[in-house]
Amino acid sequence: MISALVYADDVAESYDDLEAARTAAGTTWVHAAEATDEEIRAVQSAFDLHPLAIDDLRGDVRAKTEEYRDYTFVLLKTMRLTPGETTFEKEVATSPVGVFVGRDWVVSLGLDEARPVQRVMDAARRGDERLLQHGPDFTAYRVVDVIVDAYFDLLDGIETDIEEIEEEVTVSTDSETIEKINDVRRDLLSFRKQAWPAREAVGSLARGDPKQVQPQTEKYFRDVYDHLVQIVDLTETYRDLVSGARDIYLNTVSQSTNEVMKVLTVVATIFIPLTFVVGVYGMNFADSPYNMPELGWTFGYPAVMIGMGLIVAILLAHFRQRGYL
Amino acid sequence: MISALVYADDVAESYDDLEAARTAAGTTWVHAAEATDEEIRAVQSAFDLHPLAIDDLRGDVRAKTEEYRDYTFVLLKTMRLTPGETTFEKEVATSPVGVFVGRDWVVSLGLDEARPVQRVMDAARRGDERLLQHGPDFTAYRVVDVIVDAYFDLLDGIETDIEEIEEEVTVSTDSETIEKINDVRRDLLSFRKQAWPAREAVGSLARGDPKQVQPQTEKYFRDVYDHLVQIVDLTETYRDLVSGARDIYLNTVSQSTNEVMKVLTVVATIFIPLTFVVGVYGMNFADSPYNMPELGWTFGYPAVMIGMGLIVAILLAHFRQRGYL
Amino acid sequence: MISALVYADDVAESYDDLEAARTAAGTTWVHAAEATDEEIRAVQSAFDLHPLAIDDLRGDVRAKTEEYRDYTFVLLKTMRLTPGETTFEKEVATSPVGVFVGRDWVVSLGLDEARPVQRVMDAARRGDERLLQHGPDFTAYRVVDVIVDAYFDLLDGIETDIEEIEEEVTVSTDSETIEKINDVRRDLLSFRKQAWPAREAVGSLARGDPKQVQPQTEKYFRDVYDHLVQIVDLTETYRDLVSGARDIYLNTVSQSTNEVMKVLTVVATIFIPLTFVVGVYGMNFADSPYNMPELGWTFGYPAVMIGMGLIVAILLAHFRQRGYL
Amino acid sequence: MISALVYADDVAESYDDLEAARTAAGTTWVHAAEATDEEIRAVQSAFDLHPLAIDDLRGDVRAKTEEYRDYTFVLLKTMRLTPGETTFEKEVATSPVGVFVGRDWVVSLGLDEARPVQRVMDAARRGDERLLQHGPDFTAYRVVDVIVDAYFDLLDGIETDIEEIEEEVTVSTDSETIEKINDVRRDLLSFRKQAWPAREAVGSLARGDPKQVQPQTEKYFRDVYDHLVQIVDLTETYRDLVSGARDIYLNTVSQSTNEVMKVLTVVATIFIPLTFVVGVYGMNFADSPYNMPELGWTFGYPAVMIGMGLIVAILLAHFRQRGYL
Amino acid sequence: MISALVYADDVAESYDDLEAARTAAGTTWVHAAEATDEEIRAVQSAFDLHPLAIDDLRGDVRAKTEEYRDYTFVLLKTMRLTPGETTFEKEVATSPVGVFVGRDWVVSLGLDEARPVQRVMDAARRGDERLLQHGPDFTAYRVVDVIVDAYFDLLDGIETDIEEIEEEVTVSTDSETIEKINDVRRDLLSFRKQAWPAREAVGSLARGDPKQVQPQTEKYFRDVYDHLVQIVDLTETYRDLVSGARDIYLNTVSQSTNEVMKVLTVVATIFIPLTFVVGVYGMNFADSPYNMPELGWTFGYPAVMIGMGLIVAILLAHFRQRGYL
Repeated sequence: MISALVYADDVAESYDDLEAARTAAGTTWVHAAEATDEEIRAVQSAFDLHPLAIDDLRGDVRAKTEEYRDYTFVLLKTMRLTPGETTFEKEVATSPVGVFVGRDWVVSLGLDEARPVQRVMDAARRGDERLLQHGPDFTAYRVVDVIVDAYFDLLDGIETDIEEIEEEVTVSTDSETIEKINDVRRDLLSFRKQAWPAREAVGSLARGDPKQVQPQTEKYFRDVYDHLVQIVDLTETYRDLVSGARDIYLNTVSQSTNEVMKVLTVVATIFIPLTFVVGVYGMNFADSPYNMPELGWTFGYPAVMIGMGLIVAILLAHFRQRGYL
Repeated sequence: MISALVYADDVAESYDDLEAARTAAGTTWVHAAEATDEEIRAVQSAFDLHPLAIDDLRGDVRAKTEEYRDYTFVLLKTMRLTPGETTFEKEVATSPVGVFVGRDWVVSLGLDEARPVQRVMDAARRGDERLLQHGPDFTAYRVVDVIVDAYFDLLDGIETDIEEIEEEVTVSTDSETIEKINDVRRDLLSFRKQAWPAREAVGSLARGDPKQVQPQTEKYFRDVYDHLVQIVDLTETYRDLVSGARDIYLNTVSQSTNEVMKVLTVVATIFIPLTFVVGVYGMNFADSPYNMPELGWTFGYPAVMIGMGLIVAILLAHFRQRGYL
Repeated sequence: MISALVYADDVAESYDDLEAARTAAGTTWVHAAEATDEEIRAVQSAFDLHPLAIDDLRGDVRAKTEEYRDYTFVLLKTMRLTPGETTFEKEVATSPVGVFVGRDWVVSLGLDEARPVQRVMDAARRGDERLLQHGPDFTAYRVVDVIVDAYFDLLDGIETDIEEIEEEVTVSTDSETIEKINDVRRDLLSFRKQAWPAREAVGSLARGDPKQVQPQTEKYFRDVYDHLVQIVDLTETYRDLVSGARDIYLNTVSQSTNEVMKVLTVVATIFIPLTFVVGVYGMNFADSPYNMPELGWTFGYPAVMIGMGLIVAILLAHFRQRGYL
Repeated sequence: MISALVYADDVAESYDDLEAARTAAGTTWVHAAEATDEEIRAVQSAFDLHPLAIDDLRGDVRAKTEEYRDYTFVLLKTMRLTPGETTFEKEVATSPVGVFVGRDWVVSLGLDEARPVQRVMDAARRGDERLLQHGPDFTAYRVVDVIVDAYFDLLDGIETDIEEIEEEVTVSTDSETIEKINDVRRDLLSFRKQAWPAREAVGSLARGDPKQVQPQTEKYFRDVYDHLVQIVDLTETYRDLVSGARDIYLNTVSQSTNEVMKVLTVVATIFIPLTFVVGVYGMNFADSPYNMPELGWTFGYPAVMIGMGLIVAILLAHFRQRGYL
Repeated sequence: MISALVYADDVAESYDDLEAARTAAGTTWVHAAEATDEEIRAVQSAFDLHPLAIDDLRGDVRAKTEEYRDYTFVLLKTMRLTPGETTFEKEVATSPVGVFVGRDWVVSLGLDEARPVQRVMDAARRGDERLLQHGPDFTAYRVVDVIVDAYFDLLDGIETDIEEIEEEVTVSTDSETIEKINDVRRDLLSFRKQAWPAREAVGSLARGDPKQVQPQTEKYFRDVYDHLVQIVDLTETYRDLVSGARDIYLNTVSQSTNEVMKVLTVVATIFIPLTFVVGVYGMNFADSPYNMPELGWTFGYPAVMIGMGLIVAILLAHFRQRGYL
């Protein structure tokens, strides 16, 4: 769906004809959301866009800023977490948005609906003053800005997952937990893979390298650049948190094995000697004053039971002291 | 709370009217602690501060130094450890302070009470000579310096926690210990996240990039820069200490499992064979010269007991030799 | 097998004589697939290629771009996964392709069949317009492009292996799994070892360093460079995925040990005390009112059995609560 | 203790009066070992040293080279291992030495005795030709050189500790060993923390940045710089050795647990079945041709014993084959 | 042993007198293998070599290229694996070779026999055309080249060791294996420590920094530089292979413990309940219709045996299903 808008000072006007929009006085902004091949071709021919740039837009290419003779091409990715079957089978879905900034026009092409960009266009239509009074580089800034701002939402989603995991790892030895940890790690990897080149791409705009970026707009791009630096930073921090959570999880598993071993050791260590003792008095030696005379005692059984009780008491005290109980 | 101070040579005077303070002869320093939105707006309009800078101050933005046409904007964070429910649930709380350095004025805006900055202002009021006789860049240096100095206090707190952990890890297999280790790791992560950009921000002042920083003040900023380099260094060292502590802890857990296993092995290895022996003499074979004649011996029982005692002695000697006891 | 082609505008003509091809008007492209030593010598003398470059082609040398007086030498590697005895004994097989770009000629020498390059030549023969109308640097771009594109196929193969492993690690404790993981890690190592220098080599072409690369062709090389950046990126991501898979595998092994321990602990903890109890009633104490009077009871046996049943029930409840069952 | 020396050509003369020393013809070298606050103040005022430099000297500041208007300030640390209660409780003790290099004077201030520097001064007094005939930058080189050379002694001490640990880790499962490993790691951390900035500081002298360093002296500072590069290198190598030792230690602990488990498994696996067998013949079934007729056999007992002997033999053979014994 | 050779065009002549060799027309090459202190002094005075360079040669200094006024000094290390007592106690032995390249002379000083260099000299004597017809920088290239080529032999030795280890780790739980792994890691560390600075040193020659290196020789040094880049690369790859082998080894140990545990669990889980059952029938309850009537049955014993057989069958089926057998 192509929207063509021309604006200058306080007036914004929609156009149906791309050619007319391009030649009208004022800043022309053409935005195509969920752009079909046909639409892309139409825009491409109207604004004479280079085939390589269009290929980059369609291919799975990293974010970048490239200067062409008559315009600057900025390629960014919108990103969101797609819910999977379970909570943690989310994936980072990306979709490219290409922004071409010419002398008095901007073209933005999105392969998906690119809602944040649409909201900027709506604002322009409703008469957003700053958009109307600045040039195409400011419009490009607004588009880049809303795309990058959406990255924070994605990171918030990941943070929520990490917090859920952090609560889980101190109690769970479930092997699902390690899979969750790995899923979040994958999401961070995918995200970082996109965020790094985006930082470079916006950095080049913030330094005012392309001639279409005017000095007074650099400051705004620098602001977006700061956001991206912070985003990349957060990614690193989250990676560290995730690996901290994994350490705690692995420790929880170790602790659990340790505890199981203690239970076994306590039970076995108490009862194996006792079983030996009762085994002794089950032996069938011939009557003789030297062969187990205690079997003949009147209080033989209570004496043995008390003796075993004492052994148990001593062992328990010993275990308590060692911290096994 | 806004404090406006104008000073030159040895005289410092408080003002209520921002506009008057700005136009008075001498260096004007306006400081707003726990600045409300209204106060910020007042200062912003009096000194014509750029909205993007004010946005950065309010948002959770990394420390930075940015040059504007008429002033340089330095954004720093005050940091302190907030006590949590338990000793180790401390968190690094940060609060931004923005410092604007103009030709003959300084504006510092803090969202929290920013006590160290307040102390510098008190010193100015009481007639701190160096402050009164140098320009606004020196005042900015003092503000930056006290903020950075407070980082050392925070690191001291973290060091105390690490020392506590280091004593604990050699004896404890408690899973709380690994959580403490992780908490300190988180604190260091948060802290480092803030300290790195602060280093960059002050580095730019130390190199004298902004035109408001005079050559004789660069040396002072270089001093603060050295402190920040040292702070970032310490952070790395502490991270290494923490991961060393974690290794020792994990080893303590392994050792503990190892020891539990040894206890089990020693007890089981001694008593299982003995139980077998007494089981043998509990068998009910028919009388026959070939069926357990020892049952009929007069000293059968003592002989068996002595035999078992020998087995125990041999096993104990063996275990001692292998280091199990 | 040497193919010599001369083309200009829309006409492409095959030559048998290298010397004639070289001096013919238009762009000369000589390609030798599965080049023998003789063929290499023939091409070398016809185009006056430097012996060091030929040595590099034959040796196991990293990809690179080197400028000589009259031409630029680009050395790349074709790569593919060779199937091993089992699925995972694949190896990364590499074979060098050297591309020499002169003023009006291109020479490409491949030690193996270098099929992708052959396909470009076939396209030229069939009258590929873009090839015919651009200079030798564009031909070189096409050759470099098809070689680099084949890297993506190899990475796809590795990705398939990683996915297979990721499914396996959550259930298998087989030590073959860790060998598979290591094999994929080796493949990635070999691949990355080749991809890094290839990135540098193409980067130099993309910056237009060699004088044979014309400004309008730089853009195309930049495209290949972007692909290589993405390839190196993917390699890093895959390494992270593989090490994530290893963590899950090691955890699966730990879990398995943990589970085995739980089975042992439950069985031993239930039956060892019971065996003690029945041992007690197997003791041969003399008749006496104090020696195990329960042996004389009419319901002694059922009472003991019920008692032991209670013990089992309590222990099972306890184990269920602790999550051992 | 302040020593003031003035030398030129072959003559060296001691002075008591700093002012006189400074104005005397020739190179003046003032060295203060274990400098008290008073002594520092005296030297500071005599040579007009900047308060910030003196603060750096007193504070715990990283090594650095700073240029002031009239002199260059080099701050280095002497380092040595202080013996702790046990062999491995050594710590890296550091003490700052500040070297100020002026046009025709050198001032060196050490907070501890700084023996190596003292030895250089003694050499000057005794008429060390090279010192007497070169300028103050050569004297500074000598001071810097002896301080850096002492780092090698410290590294030798650490290497000895590592070798001791490497012998220990293959046999010890003592948890003291991991503490020793951690202590050495700490020492290396502390050392590296000081060596890195020292490298930077001397690097700046080796590049001849400060105007006091003459071209012919650069070569000597480059030599010291090479030493520091090597020192930093060694630190990294030692860190790798220490982490290798830790791996072996952790493996020794694992092996030990593994061995304990094998002992338990062998003993339990042999005797538990035997105990079952003898338990069978301890059952009290009524006489009946179907109820354990072997109890009535003449050779029942020897037959059972031989049967059990066979079981043991088979199990032992099985265990030997699996490598448990 | 000093060899002095003077050559020009196609003639090479040996000299005994260093001074005469130096002043003779043509390129003078003096090579001292296993150079004694005396020989070094002789060469030093004849060619006026700087004492610092000679000190570097004698000390354990990193490879480097240093320019002096009249010559360039290249310091490299020959390296070889010295066999230790066992296969894996090899160590990397290094020995320095210093190459001084003057306007029309080359001096090479080796502290050990430096055989590869000797072979180059022999080639010169026998009339190696390329050596005779190029200047001293080409001779220096040949010397550097043969030293660096020998590094590949050393790496081949290390690769053989790694392959041996890789076969071993999948079956061995022997703690000797981890020591072998650590030994190879040490060798790689030592090797890398030398290879890194060598790369820098040759890189400076390849860029043609020293004025003695002529443009047409740069290409040759670039070739050696490529080799060193590849060598450093291989070192990194080998480190990764070694750490992969360690992972497999540690997993083999874990697997072994896991298996031992399974054996114990299977045996104990089968026989402990059975022992309980036979214990039951060994109890001495008084005759009563409620006290173990099965003891009085004619087929009591076979019934119990069949019952226990069933229990064993069920347990075995269960264990098979869980993969314990």
